Amino acid sequence: MIRLFVAADLEAGAEIALPSDQAHYLANVMRQGVGATARLFNGRDGEWTARLTVVTKRVCALRVETRERTQDTGPDLDLIVALVKRPRLETIVEKAAELGARRVRLITTERTNADRAKVERLTAIATEAAEQTGRLDVPTVAGPDKLDRILRDWDGSRRLMFCDEAGDAAPVLTALEAVPPGPWAILIGPEGGFSPGERERIRATPGAVAVSLGPRILRADTAAIAAMTLWQASLGDWTAGASPAS
Amino acid sequence: MIRLFVAADLEAGAEIALPSDQAHYLANVMRQGVGATARLFNGRDGEWTARLTVVTKRVCALRVETRERTQDTGPDLDLIVALVKRPRLETIVEKAAELGARRVRLITTERTNADRAKVERLTAIATEAAEQTGRLDVPTVAGPDKLDRILRDWDGSRRLMFCDEAGDAAPVLTALEAVPPGPWAILIGPEGGFSPGERERIRATPGAVAVSLGPRILRADTAAIAAMTLWQASLGDWTAGASPAS
Repeated sequence: MIRLFVAADLEAGAEIALPSDQAHYLANVMRQGVGATARLFNGRDGEWTARLTVVTKRVCALRVETRERTQDTGPDLDLIVALVKRPRLETIVEKAAELGARRVRLITTERTNADRAKVERLTAIATEAAEQTGRLDVPTVAGPDKLDRILRDWDGSRRLMFCDEAGDAAPVLTALEAVPPGPWAILIGPEGGFSPGERERIRATPGAVAVSLGPRILRADTAAIAAMTLWQASLGDWTAGASPAS
Repeated sequence: MIRLFVAADLEAGAEIALPSDQAHYLANVMRQGVGATARLFNGRDGEWTARLTVVTKRVCALRVETRERTQDTGPDLDLIVALVKRPRLETIVEKAAELGARRVRLITTERTNADRAKVERLTAIATEAAEQTGRLDVPTVAGPDKLDRILRDWDGSRRLMFCDEAGDAAPVLTALEAVPPGPWAILIGPEGGFSPGERERIRATPGAVAVSLGPRILRADTAAIAAMTLWQASLGDWTAGASPAS
């Protein structure tokens, strides 16, 4: 089933003209013709079946028909991640979308080697992953901001899961077990890790929960995926109590 | 710290000549000279400090000095994974090494589009990841074999974690909680999933444990990483009871 994220409002009878990249995808890559259906979502109005009414090489339009799922934005989970090399950063953003993070916040740290990121390109990756994974929203991608500024402004009602390589943190499932539900963020450092000073400031941040991700050294993308997975399985929508997806 | 996996036996005083790719890496990429140290491991004799005694453009030799860690092979976990497109398969093998799988077994299934894999190249990826992640062995990479043949020959004393997309499986942490420790394998299907017949045969295999990885559709690499992570955190060496790495 083809799923497309669109900007327009979705309601029965609405006509939606697709931007040229999506029109190209539908008409030329997936070879869909007039009368074919796709699913549309916009992060606000749920997921709708829509039928192709116009197909040319450059223009596609669909008429919105039936709502198939009501809107659901998933758990309130941010991923805060230091800028790493482009392929791994793109993997992290793709996986954040698949694993149900609501926001990706890029940061620079003392050991970060870059200070800018292609947020538009990362948003496109998040959008495509959201389309494929079946979620009803697209994680926002923002930043980069300085780690220290984020810590200084931290709202302690949001827990901060800190994957601490330096050693004495509790095993991750034990640490998460002890914490009530609520908004969370996961913090992932650069390939060289956080500096000792940063580590101290992170651990002193209200709401910070240090966890250990085992005895081996993990690359940043592996740590990000592992942390999001464990959070979803412990506290998020992979748990027994979570409502099933429709 | 530079870590290298070598084939030779390691004991104090042994002289080790490196193959040309490792010699190139040490001499030209890392620009190490005579007297510099590296760590060596071979999957049998623990991890040793060794000192460079010969460095030319094409030849490097080291003298083995002191054992720093005793051998430890990690938990008995196999990853059985269907052939997927090369970049994602390479990611899966890299992550299997980081996440402590002991073996990677490649399989073909009804919906697999390939029937061969570059096992030598995948082994090189596993080796490099093992060097970086700090483990003392390299996961073996073998296959591809047919899924049905593996299921037919299955030894029921090894549990088989089956990530079931089709719906009624238990949440993963609940399912793993109920099972005693012992040898395990994780089974990951191709991008199109298992066929209904395959799914039935997997669930009927002695030792099979069906688990759900949440409400979203995961790509094969995401599912593999998530499953290995959850296994390590629940039953492997990320748990409170596991012995810490030295």
